[in-house]
Amino acid sequence: MRPSSVAAVQILKVTSPGSDKNSFASNQAEDLLAVEQPLEIRIVYGSGKERQQKNISVTMCTPGNDAELAVGFLFTEGIITRKEDILDCISPGDNIVIAELQPGISFDPKKIERHFYTSSSCGVCGKSSIDAVKNVFSKNGAKDNMMINASVFPKLPDTLRKKQEVFEHTGGLHASALFDLDGNLLLTREDVGRHNALDKLIGAALIAGNIPLDKHILLLSGRASFELIQKAAMAGIKIVCAVGAPSSLAVELAKECDMTLVGFLRDGRFNIYSGEQRINK
Amino acid sequence: MRPSSVAAVQILKVTSPGSDKNSFASNQAEDLLAVEQPLEIRIVYGSGKERQQKNISVTMCTPGNDAELAVGFLFTEGIITRKEDILDCISPGDNIVIAELQPGISFDPKKIERHFYTSSSCGVCGKSSIDAVKNVFSKNGAKDNMMINASVFPKLPDTLRKKQEVFEHTGGLHASALFDLDGNLLLTREDVGRHNALDKLIGAALIAGNIPLDKHILLLSGRASFELIQKAAMAGIKIVCAVGAPSSLAVELAKECDMTLVGFLRDGRFNIYSGEQRINK
Repeated sequence: MRPSSVAAVQILKVTSPGSDKNSFASNQAEDLLAVEQPLEIRIVYGSGKERQQKNISVTMCTPGNDAELAVGFLFTEGIITRKEDILDCISPGDNIVIAELQPGISFDPKKIERHFYTSSSCGVCGKSSIDAVKNVFSKNGAKDNMMINASVFPKLPDTLRKKQEVFEHTGGLHASALFDLDGNLLLTREDVGRHNALDKLIGAALIAGNIPLDKHILLLSGRASFELIQKAAMAGIKIVCAVGAPSSLAVELAKECDMTLVGFLRDGRFNIYSGEQRINK
Repeated sequence: MRPSSVAAVQILKVTSPGSDKNSFASNQAEDLLAVEQPLEIRIVYGSGKERQQKNISVTMCTPGNDAELAVGFLFTEGIITRKEDILDCISPGDNIVIAELQPGISFDPKKIERHFYTSSSCGVCGKSSIDAVKNVFSKNGAKDNMMINASVFPKLPDTLRKKQEVFEHTGGLHASALFDLDGNLLLTREDVGRHNALDKLIGAALIAGNIPLDKHILLLSGRASFELIQKAAMAGIKIVCAVGAPSSLAVELAKECDMTLVGFLRDGRFNIYSGEQRINK
């Protein structure tokens, strides 16, 4: 059995009582931590006698929803394109999840080795990667004329926070949340890694048969990086909101994909970085 | 020339004037974003006719201090162990930095391919990685009897904030900062990726001949993950403070390394997760 997503430890809490900045009180206390563990994602691929297993990723993540994480990762990295590409997804033990691809699915290990020689992200490389994402994105969602009332946005972070139970305990988890266009919360996933939280969310949606997510709003609990926008685009998501700041490349990719990108969504206000035509002000 | 670490974009700022939650005002404004770009790290290794070049990482990072990032990355990943292992470090163009290893330095590409098949982190895998880090850590710092006054800690985040110029502009960067034991700020580095900010800091220290950093305090502007504690341990750092929460595995590694780990360092208080013997309360 996988351990839970929260671990208790004994700590010393140090506080300055009153106004004297050089006087400190300390007391023993129990503190709850977000659990972080390595998870190795393997795939089984090929046909007949050629069928083989390969490690394709080790990610530091929070236990729980491992199959969703693996399936979401394979999908957002373009290794699978639909739910049916996966035959089975099993956890033979702690820290390992194995996704069996359908025998017909082609997989080139060389490609992924090159793709994954990175320590931080998805091995993307500028313009060519943006073009690749755009191709998938345009397939996953046709032109739309969605309109969302501006009043929907400010409520999203509060709605998420009420559901984000582990964060309340530990202060240490990122969350991804999926809403409908009226701001009703549909799904949340949490993880110490923000890309993992989003992979879990997209994996869950794929398993439930709900991809593309082109009639939904994605809320990110932190900042919006290129990698997160890329993953959202792969799932056909057209409206992404972040509580924190977007990066330059996140904004660039959102614009290229005609995605609506909202940032600094907090305290009843927000910034629109891309795709303002969908927001009814 | 590399672009700067900040990019200006035109955005729409949406605010709710007064108490009417369904009424919104919007206005065009300029917003500053933290620049995010792919950086490919290559090494040149081998001797004589066998000398060759290899890509070992693509990381999404903020431009600036590329050589420090490359050198810090090679050091914290254990590919080099001292400044002298690097012959030269050059940027032949945007998005590429090439570190030339001394001809005598052994490098096994197989090892790094396995090590880097991860999308999120350093490819570490539980216990064996913790043991490996402990071995390096114990070499990089002997037993100590350092004592730091508790009053030093609460001042660190304010001191960093005053120096963290890009963050002030964008709200989008992580910072790593190095202090002496009296709380004097020695060095800061910023990046959209928190591991990059720390690699830049450690790379700068290595280039300046200041490793091991065993008489210093490291401050992290966000949360403390396993990967960050691992990198700090590689540099011999004994005292790590984080403004945010540590993960379970970060605390475990800090304890194994007898490192002092302080978390939730904010508003004049903090939690001690490990190594309290160095803090004079």
